[in-house]
Amino acid sequence: MTTLYHLPLSPYCRKVRLVLGEKELPFELKVEQVWERREEFEALNHAGTVPVLVEDDGLVVADSNAICEYLDEAYPERRLVGQTHQERAEVRRLVAWFDQKFGLQVTASLYGEKQLKRLLGQGPADAAVLRAGYANLKLHMQYLGWLVETRKWLAGPNLSLADFAAAAHLSTLDFMNEVDWAKYEAVKEWYALIKSRPAFRPLLGDKVSGLLPPRHYQDLDF
Amino acid sequence: MTTLYHLPLSPYCRKVRLVLGEKELPFELKVEQVWERREEFEALNHAGTVPVLVEDDGLVVADSNAICEYLDEAYPERRLVGQTHQERAEVRRLVAWFDQKFGLQVTASLYGEKQLKRLLGQGPADAAVLRAGYANLKLHMQYLGWLVETRKWLAGPNLSLADFAAAAHLSTLDFMNEVDWAKYEAVKEWYALIKSRPAFRPLLGDKVSGLLPPRHYQDLDF
Repeated sequence: MTTLYHLPLSPYCRKVRLVLGEKELPFELKVEQVWERREEFEALNHAGTVPVLVEDDGLVVADSNAICEYLDEAYPERRLVGQTHQERAEVRRLVAWFDQKFGLQVTASLYGEKQLKRLLGQGPADAAVLRAGYANLKLHMQYLGWLVETRKWLAGPNLSLADFAAAAHLSTLDFMNEVDWAKYEAVKEWYALIKSRPAFRPLLGDKVSGLLPPRHYQDLDF
Repeated sequence: MTTLYHLPLSPYCRKVRLVLGEKELPFELKVEQVWERREEFEALNHAGTVPVLVEDDGLVVADSNAICEYLDEAYPERRLVGQTHQERAEVRRLVAWFDQKFGLQVTASLYGEKQLKRLLGQGPADAAVLRAGYANLKLHMQYLGWLVETRKWLAGPNLSLADFAAAAHLSTLDFMNEVDWAKYEAVKEWYALIKSRPAFRPLLGDKVSGLLPPRHYQDLDF
């Protein structure tokens, strides 16, 4: 069976899990504590990061973007990167937006400072970094709001990888109770649609040692 | 004609220029001083970053990864992302390695601290960041050395986007005279092969205000 090496709260791993689920591909999850720098794992991915996908035939795909592009090429029945050049360009622009811009400006600041630093014993969160993260989160929520108010899904009329990339980051922050949903009604409605998809269900049951998600995290009518 | 909004020293723009050149696609370059936050430009790419590609028919593609994937799909005669799933996974893993890992750990530290800060009037370079950048550059050059000693091109037997991503970052650093080629003979040989391709020639003639490249930058037998 396909194996995905992951960490439960990594938004990049969550994005891949959503894609696998949406394509109804069976897979086995293995938690990889990347900070242990396990030799056998680093032989699979020299960067030492998750997610890494290993197929039955031995194919190894590292990096969340490489994995999602691969899955869309190998299992094209339910296209998630779009059909036309224009759709594909818009999906990829938004995936880069969330995985890189949002990832650096928000997720790394909040999840990185609060969770990863604690896990790695790197001391307390830096207040200035947190402040910047919260300020950036507001701006990104406004942009998300604009997207969902002008389009059915983030990249256009069809559900796509862009929705999963964005929802993955938000779900990590939501697990940490960092999203003030009441302030962003339109984004909340879009997120509720993603959250109610079967592919999302496993993420709602994730357990993370030392961190309890807020009650609304699992609730589909939050 | 296809238009590419760019900055001469951006490795992400350089990668796209190499791909356009390798595919022998005619294009027009427009320098976009992104820090001016020109409204018409931000309408093309809300992230306000280069590169942005605009096709004759009005198609806009933003983000260097989205552009390169688009070019390989729209102009597939000379495939640069690989053919098989395995080749494509390896090309994309390495593109992510150079554009993200190398980009953050080396290019952002050296080009970002020395060049961009000066351009943006953000004060002198931070010595600790530069030190980290140089230390990381050594490790990356060793990894590059291992790749070129075990394979014909970075991702395997065929020239690919991985070579252009890596060469783009190195060319930016080389323009700033930051690469000690004498220490990395195998990498130098690989880089000389890329440098001698017709697609590379325009990059050798780039002019950047306030920065003169070292003599060897333009030299094909450096």
